Amino acid sequence: MLGEIIAIGDELTSGRIPNTTSGFAAHHLFEAGFDIYAMHTIGDTPSLIGEALKRALSRVDFVLVTGGLGPTDDDLTTMAVSEALERPTMPNLEILSLIRQHLDANSDQPVSSLEKLAWLPEGAETLNPKAKMAGFQLIHGGKPIFFLPGIPHQMRTLLIEEVLPRLTTWYKGKQLNSIQHVFKIFGLSESEINSRIKALSLNPDVEIGYYPVFPDVHLSMTVRDNDKEKIEQLARETSQQLKEALGTYLYGMGRESLAAVVGGMLRDGNKQFSVAESCTGGLISHLMTSIAGSSGYFLGGVTSYANSMKTEYLGVKKTSLTTHGAVSEEVAMEMVHGIRQTSGADISVSVTGIAGPGGGTEEKPVGTVFIAMGTEDNSSCHHFLFSGNRYEIQQLTAQTALDIVRRYLLKTEQNS
Amino acid sequence: MLGEIIAIGDELTSGRIPNTTSGFAAHHLFEAGFDIYAMHTIGDTPSLIGEALKRALSRVDFVLVTGGLGPTDDDLTTMAVSEALERPTMPNLEILSLIRQHLDANSDQPVSSLEKLAWLPEGAETLNPKAKMAGFQLIHGGKPIFFLPGIPHQMRTLLIEEVLPRLTTWYKGKQLNSIQHVFKIFGLSESEINSRIKALSLNPDVEIGYYPVFPDVHLSMTVRDNDKEKIEQLARETSQQLKEALGTYLYGMGRESLAAVVGGMLRDGNKQFSVAESCTGGLISHLMTSIAGSSGYFLGGVTSYANSMKTEYLGVKKTSLTTHGAVSEEVAMEMVHGIRQTSGADISVSVTGIAGPGGGTEEKPVGTVFIAMGTEDNSSCHHFLFSGNRYEIQQLTAQTALDIVRRYLLKTEQNS
Repeated sequence: MLGEIIAIGDELTSGRIPNTTSGFAAHHLFEAGFDIYAMHTIGDTPSLIGEALKRALSRVDFVLVTGGLGPTDDDLTTMAVSEALERPTMPNLEILSLIRQHLDANSDQPVSSLEKLAWLPEGAETLNPKAKMAGFQLIHGGKPIFFLPGIPHQMRTLLIEEVLPRLTTWYKGKQLNSIQHVFKIFGLSESEINSRIKALSLNPDVEIGYYPVFPDVHLSMTVRDNDKEKIEQLARETSQQLKEALGTYLYGMGRESLAAVVGGMLRDGNKQFSVAESCTGGLISHLMTSIAGSSGYFLGGVTSYANSMKTEYLGVKKTSLTTHGAVSEEVAMEMVHGIRQTSGADISVSVTGIAGPGGGTEEKPVGTVFIAMGTEDNSSCHHFLFSGNRYEIQQLTAQTALDIVRRYLLKTEQNS
Repeated sequence: MLGEIIAIGDELTSGRIPNTTSGFAAHHLFEAGFDIYAMHTIGDTPSLIGEALKRALSRVDFVLVTGGLGPTDDDLTTMAVSEALERPTMPNLEILSLIRQHLDANSDQPVSSLEKLAWLPEGAETLNPKAKMAGFQLIHGGKPIFFLPGIPHQMRTLLIEEVLPRLTTWYKGKQLNSIQHVFKIFGLSESEINSRIKALSLNPDVEIGYYPVFPDVHLSMTVRDNDKEKIEQLARETSQQLKEALGTYLYGMGRESLAAVVGGMLRDGNKQFSVAESCTGGLISHLMTSIAGSSGYFLGGVTSYANSMKTEYLGVKKTSLTTHGAVSEEVAMEMVHGIRQTSGADISVSVTGIAGPGGGTEEKPVGTVFIAMGTEDNSSCHHFLFSGNRYEIQQLTAQTALDIVRRYLLKTEQNS
């Protein structure tokens, strides 16, 4: 079962706003067993919208259209669809009454612009009138077309709660079974991974894809067939081969971030973690705390951007700063010692470096980074020279620091 | 001058990787005066690649193709183009020799897969052989086609350094003059902004677009015409009207982030800033330090995720924690007092709240947030109830905290 996705909006074709909804939809449709033939992004131009929709209907089994459903004057999707498919718009009384109720409660809202949301092409069925979001479905020539708002969180909600269940029911049993696993790798290049995988001589029915997603590389393994048991066995066997080939460079699977993997290991090992950051400026803390439940193992941290913060909060010696500089092994070690002692953590990391663009010297160029890790038994410091812009150096430093913790926890697990 | 963008990769149509390159290209092409007719995303399927390229060539003036140029086996763009345009591939001797030089220096690299990069369709001209990136140009039927790698930073470099200058030279004088300003707004909804703008009765030649970009709303104003002076005057006058209508909800223009705006105001006012975070977990520090030069005004901060960190690093009283709870006005005020005193900052903010999904109670549901700001003269605390998921509550809290600082600095500037 093949589909196309059409995203509408001048804000997308002029590059003002990144299109995040099409990729989200593709991912969830793919996981549900549907293939995407193509995704298109076009402006708020009725003739283009009509043309793209009619072309898609001529070659695929379903179409998903996002954007251009809002109340403002530049939202033209409904009108364009009405013309292209020759279905005049008419007011949906249920939506109209909900909008009027809402307006009574919020009388300063502009009436006419919101009422526009109730006018839909003939035959349209609203996806969820109670959700206070635009979004409807049309069956045209026996094929379902779904129209969703372009606002990402509304689009996501309606896709998951309304579109996927409806599509699965409509095409029941017509999708191929598929299994896809995504392997997340840090510390090996795409070519290095490719060499390792080639040496495996995998079953030719397995599709492998490589995707550098800075600072990681993702590898996808896909198997598809009518025979569910066959692909389950093939996926199991291939995953095992891939895991062995990738070794400890493989940090996680699927949507797991490195922070989530490290968090899970800390939780399972009943260890408390804290961090002292300089050049990453809070990024490591932010990555750790973006994971729900992180308060179970993450105590917190100090972002000691200024030298005064390093002495005041972390007990870094002024003489270390003057003798070795803030970006040095000595200071990184004092930072990690300071944060671990005061926070009472089992494991701490510290980072100090030069993210640029300014601040580099001949001796310590931009990208120079020291990462120290301290535990009850041991502490150590690693020296790196990363390349990239400020954003890349910060991301690479944070990911490397988390990976150092992951590798330590991995060893601890194996020894216990 | 109209163009189309074709992004290639199974990783895109299956939604594993978000397509960020097409939007980036569209933005820069738009700014250079080119319009994008449509953007397409298709899989690594030679027949689809050929079809999309031929269709684009039939209706627009130039085509940009990204992805599928790499060394691995799933990169099929060059082959597909060669077939579709009937231009057999042949080795580019300059690239081949550069690859061999590189291989001599790194002899563990797989030779044959990298050498694949040197085989290009007949008539292809490499964009920058010294850049060690795939990427070439073809002139077909009098129209330029650019092929760029899908890896975002390589694609961006070649687009800016090679494609835009070549395209501008090729179509010299054929673009319309255009001016676009983007207004960044925090604290007003799309409908509220729309009402304010409608009341202005703007010149009908001005195009206005609205884009909710969580947690902000962006408004774009575009004017296009052959007459450069005319659009400059219209853009100036309209910008003035829009600025008045948006008032202090307008925090910045174009690519400026709120953290950059606040940073600029701190630098200009010669003020040092620090932050004590709980539920945002380092996000405010991260936003501040993502700006180059932030060490001039940002001292750092404490992420006091655990209560012990709040007492240890910020001097929060244990009785405040037990009597009022960590999420309370009292604790927010003690946090901001503590960080400001110890860091020696002129201005500090603190945040404490419940980002969820767990941790909510009837009295303090998920989304409850206290944000305090402290200065030499004054300190105050605001109580919020934000809605959304964990990510949204963290983002909204950080943006609101920065906006509180911005509004304070705005008043200080006006009074001085």
